Amino acid sequence: MTTSRREVLLGAGGAALGAAAMWGLGTLEAIAPEDVGRARISCHGAHQAGIATPPQGFLALTAFDLTEGTDVEGARRLLRLWTEDIERLTTGEPTITDTEPELAQLPASLTITVGFGPGFYDKLGLRRPSWLKQLPPYPIDQLDEAFVGGDIALQVCSNDPITTAHAARVMAKEATVYATPRWSQYGSRNAPGVTTATMRNHFGQLDGTRNPDPAEEPNLIFRDDGTSSMVVRRIHMNLDTWDELDLPARDIVLGRRQSTGAPLTGEKEFDEPDMAAKNSIGFPVIDVAAHIRRARTDDGSQRILRRPYNYVDLPRAGQISNVGLVFIAFQADLEHQYLPLQAQLAELDLLNQWTTPIGSAVFAIPRGFRPGEILGEAELAVAAQSDR
Amino acid sequence: MTTSRREVLLGAGGAALGAAAMWGLGTLEAIAPEDVGRARISCHGAHQAGIATPPQGFLALTAFDLTEGTDVEGARRLLRLWTEDIERLTTGEPTITDTEPELAQLPASLTITVGFGPGFYDKLGLRRPSWLKQLPPYPIDQLDEAFVGGDIALQVCSNDPITTAHAARVMAKEATVYATPRWSQYGSRNAPGVTTATMRNHFGQLDGTRNPDPAEEPNLIFRDDGTSSMVVRRIHMNLDTWDELDLPARDIVLGRRQSTGAPLTGEKEFDEPDMAAKNSIGFPVIDVAAHIRRARTDDGSQRILRRPYNYVDLPRAGQISNVGLVFIAFQADLEHQYLPLQAQLAELDLLNQWTTPIGSAVFAIPRGFRPGEILGEAELAVAAQSDR
Ligand code: HEM
Ligand code: HEM
Repeated sequence: MTTSRREVLLGAGGAALGAAAMWGLGTLEAIAPEDVGRARISCHGAHQAGIATPPQGFLALTAFDLTEGTDVEGARRLLRLWTEDIERLTTGEPTITDTEPELAQLPASLTITVGFGPGFYDKLGLRRPSWLKQLPPYPIDQLDEAFVGGDIALQVCSNDPITTAHAARVMAKEATVYATPRWSQYGSRNAPGVTTATMRNHFGQLDGTRNPDPAEEPNLIFRDDGTSSMVVRRIHMNLDTWDELDLPARDIVLGRRQSTGAPLTGEKEFDEPDMAAKNSIGFPVIDVAAHIRRARTDDGSQRILRRPYNYVDLPRAGQISNVGLVFIAFQADLEHQYLPLQAQLAELDLLNQWTTPIGSAVFAIPRGFRPGEILGEAELAVAAQSDR
Repeated sequence: MTTSRREVLLGAGGAALGAAAMWGLGTLEAIAPEDVGRARISCHGAHQAGIATPPQGFLALTAFDLTEGTDVEGARRLLRLWTEDIERLTTGEPTITDTEPELAQLPASLTITVGFGPGFYDKLGLRRPSWLKQLPPYPIDQLDEAFVGGDIALQVCSNDPITTAHAARVMAKEATVYATPRWSQYGSRNAPGVTTATMRNHFGQLDGTRNPDPAEEPNLIFRDDGTSSMVVRRIHMNLDTWDELDLPARDIVLGRRQSTGAPLTGEKEFDEPDMAAKNSIGFPVIDVAAHIRRARTDDGSQRILRRPYNYVDLPRAGQISNVGLVFIAFQADLEHQYLPLQAQLAELDLLNQWTTPIGSAVFAIPRGFRPGEILGEAELAVAAQSDR
């Protein structure tokens, strides 16, 4: 019954929207009570879930450090435990040691994605991929050590806040002997059923308009072996000074209209920006330092997949609010895709005046796993044996 | 079209659930994409919205202190501004000065509730209701001054995280000349569409089972003049030590089963607990110090309306997680209803071993307002003129 109802409504609402909007949305179907809670996303596949997955509403991202004394065998044990946990939690089953098993019953499209930081390889005596290191220091950075680095990343996403918090906690508890939490970051996008539009960030901007569709261009995001790379930047957004800017100034900073998300050279959100267009007095319509000009190159193979979440921190004394973006980017080739973009933005980007990177971390993302396999195991084995 | 679809689906799913579950759920209707975002709750009525309103998914609760120099006239101006803001924001209209008007477009069942703390009356030279003062110190308290007191409370709730954050910020900015933020607390319940069940807290317990239905027993929550009182307790929940308890011990602490929420003397969540029942060796089945025994009296008129939210703080170094409950209670008569319960729980409650109040505040809740009226105005006028 649920199925037929869904199909009918999907037919009614789903046809009008393109692939980009679909990725931003997660579901176009009408949802019966509890459907959002029961929905599952398979953890198995060529790639880990939580990357090409349409972003769910809630994020808990934890970085761990390996405990002293954890060796390759220990890391393998941890990965074995986590693999089973992921298989259970994403299907609505509590883990074996779960003391709040009721909080596991509604997977709500839960995905759990594991990444390895530089220290993972170094501390275990494995050969670290040469590109895997912290980002270079940028003049725009004001990094808080509390949000930098980490040997392992665990990205937990789902469409329910308590499912997300619970899964992140269960996994962290399971790791105790082998790894201890270094930092956590929580974030949210629109709640399920709120909108089919691109997410808006705290500045009011549509954020995610020009993002590759992982189904159409998987090679931008995954290497042939199914691996990827993940960059996490915690970026504080200064709403107080941003709110002093008038709307035309804001639109110049971005190169798009806050209202519709359309480029300043176009009418609709998904119109292609015309970077060459000049206004009546000969100046570029999209400013030379506008964020969307600086955030791209002419080389289409340098695009990245952004999967960011808004964060809301407790304000400090005197602050009205303390907000920003947990900026998360996936790309097949960090050096070819991410680093040039980031360097270019750090060098010149009008947006930099209102945003400040306060956290930074880089992780290698192992390929996906099939039933019976252990997440990251192949990775570990190869890295240990060869000098690839 | 949306309407007929909703009606059809409401007929299918809505009938089976009782009033208590309805209150916990917010909506029983199947939801088409964007319905959750478009939904509105009227801000007008005999009572302020956000109290008898079925709890939405997300909370931003801010306490303000009046700035030096704010007099009754200033307070009236602030309330006039806020009244208009509330009328706009709850209908999906940005405020006049809104610099991110796009973030106001999806009200997502937004409600905004205003309360006055003791300092509001004292600083403005108004006669403070005699019951309106901070709670007495309890031996269980470990209060962090950063979460105590406040002259004005602004409770913002909606079914979307960004709508909630935006509305809270817009209102705080509007207040700037008259009042400055003292503390903020953010929380969440299940996301829309996830479940029709009672919310679970971080301990895994169904939290909200025995709560008065405001539609059936409004007199527990509102005085005849439409006013109410609000208690906010920020309560840290020690998951690390809680997780060392086995399930039977947890159920004894609460007096209900974590799995089903049923009282230890019953089978189903909404079964009435039998406080007199003894086990085979003559001990009470529901422990003398169990939370649900200590949280009630024999006097039905002493019940309170709990409207709590789970909170997730950034963990401190070494912590796996840092979570708790933004405990919010509304009652017509603080002295008759809340204080005896709280004193009783502070004196003896097994749960106290795993929970620590770290914030505390009390507010008087003005009655609701009609179009053309100003929220809290009547209140202000009466308080200024009489010694009631
Ligand atoms: C708080 C910080 C940031 C904010 C508020 C922000 C906001 C935006 C917005 C509103 C857009 C236009 C809509 C869209 O295409 O999604 C955009 C585009 C983009 N941003 Fe950012 N961004 C931030 C940081 C970054 C960072 C750190 C990077 C990469 C290092 C980045 C890379 C991009 C890219 C690649 C695009 C698409 C450009 C294009 O191809 O048109 N952004 N950003
Ligand atoms: C973190 C702290 C707390 C937790 C985890 C908690 C949890 C619970 C749970 C799971 C229940 C049983 C289900 C239900 O009826 O909702 C309950 C009942 C109740 N709690 Fe709490 N509670 C906390 C603090 C408080 C406080 C501070 C008060 C009031 C001062 C309170 C008052 C009540 C009342 C009145 C009931 C219903 C008792 C009945 O009539 O059966 N609780 N609580």
